[in-house]
Amino acid sequence: MEKRELLYDGKAKQIFATDDPKYVIMNYKDDASAYYGVKKSSIKDKGMMNCHISEIIFNYLQKCGIKTHLVKCIDDNNMLCRRVKAIPLEFIVRNLIAGSLARRLDIQEGTMPQSPIYEICLKSDLLRDPMINRFHVKALGYATDETLDAILKMLKQVNEALQKLFRQVDIDVVDFKLEFGFDNDGELILIDEISPDTARFWDSNSKEILDSDRFRRDLGQVEEAYHEVLDRLQKLTSNLD
Amino acid sequence: MEKRELLYDGKAKQIFATDDPKYVIMNYKDDASAYYGVKKSSIKDKGMMNCHISEIIFNYLQKCGIKTHLVKCIDDNNMLCRRVKAIPLEFIVRNLIAGSLARRLDIQEGTMPQSPIYEICLKSDLLRDPMINRFHVKALGYATDETLDAILKMLKQVNEALQKLFRQVDIDVVDFKLEFGFDNDGELILIDEISPDTARFWDSNSKEILDSDRFRRDLGQVEEAYHEVLDRLQKLTSNLD
Repeated sequence: MEKRELLYDGKAKQIFATDDPKYVIMNYKDDASAYYGVKKSSIKDKGMMNCHISEIIFNYLQKCGIKTHLVKCIDDNNMLCRRVKAIPLEFIVRNLIAGSLARRLDIQEGTMPQSPIYEICLKSDLLRDPMINRFHVKALGYATDETLDAILKMLKQVNEALQKLFRQVDIDVVDFKLEFGFDNDGELILIDEISPDTARFWDSNSKEILDSDRFRRDLGQVEEAYHEVLDRLQKLTSNLD
Repeated sequence: MEKRELLYDGKAKQIFATDDPKYVIMNYKDDASAYYGVKKSSIKDKGMMNCHISEIIFNYLQKCGIKTHLVKCIDDNNMLCRRVKAIPLEFIVRNLIAGSLARRLDIQEGTMPQSPIYEICLKSDLLRDPMINRFHVKALGYATDETLDAILKMLKQVNEALQKLFRQVDIDVVDFKLEFGFDNDGELILIDEISPDTARFWDSNSKEILDSDRFRRDLGQVEEAYHEVLDRLQKLTSNLD
């Protein structure tokens, strides 16, 4: 597969066309950003680590019957993916209260809600990904009710699968963000990435933060935290093979 | 009915106990505020106008089969109401995009969505009434799924009834905020007020603003706008009697 023109240059990833219109190549960058680009830096090996963490997670989800855009990793930073028509929404799943939600509702971080919380945000850096609900989605034409229902079902499946996977490596899946798209056959599939950039991971025992909050909050040991997540997942999956 | 101790002193209304534990007296004030109390003033006769506008609307809704807390107006500013256990949520119904939603999603004011939009906010001045969704409501214990379903049904009924009423006085019901509570018998009823303080009303022909946005945006003629709404409703209902 040949890498062709740059289609999208995001904060953490670039997407390139290939010689096959059904596929793209996703390049994971070391660039780190927070607060909608207000805070910027670079984290050594972050691209490589997120590429491999996402690869392990997407492979696992596919084994659980959840369709994703992953085809295979080409090298440490480049992932061959199915090309999709992306839905311009972000979906957040929260198992524990943390981050912006803790601040917005004045709830202590780490509080466990009675059931998982699902949120929908409009994907727009300019508008700072405003939270909306399913009435906005339908009434403003961002997606149909049927698509939303199908996504909600997938959110639950992904959450259950992720929690099962991460329980085996002693990590709490606090929250995470998912994106979806329609592939060439019109099938709804999971896209983007699942990594410490897009999820909150806490060590189940020490509650140590193993995600991008180390960067956002200047906690140090950012690279080491990402490595810890990758190492635990790699050890687990090599044992499983 | 005797007015007893002050139970609640809000930005625009006070609630007093009475000698009957099943009832309260709601006193509509002339105090005006916007942006969570950052902007404050007083509008002549606002209390009287909102009291009578709410009275007309609540009476009309009750005729449409929607239960409200209104018993009767005692005088120009005081309304005898059923006492309730209030649900700590605010429900917004939007027929046209305006105000904060227009800014948040960068949509032109006056745009008509494909269907009405319903929003849920946590009632908290301190937190600036943050928007939440039904997952937060259930998971954080603000209300049950059954209560939410019943409220959603009532939102639709109220919206249809309000639009029917205001069409007859050439006013567009752009959006409005509702609150609910459980009365002494555990029945879900509509509470609070419906007035130019809690709704956006535009003249159907000129699109002139006839609500609190005149105050928020320093458009002048605030008192006159509220009077216009009251006058039109009074003329209509006196013709109907």
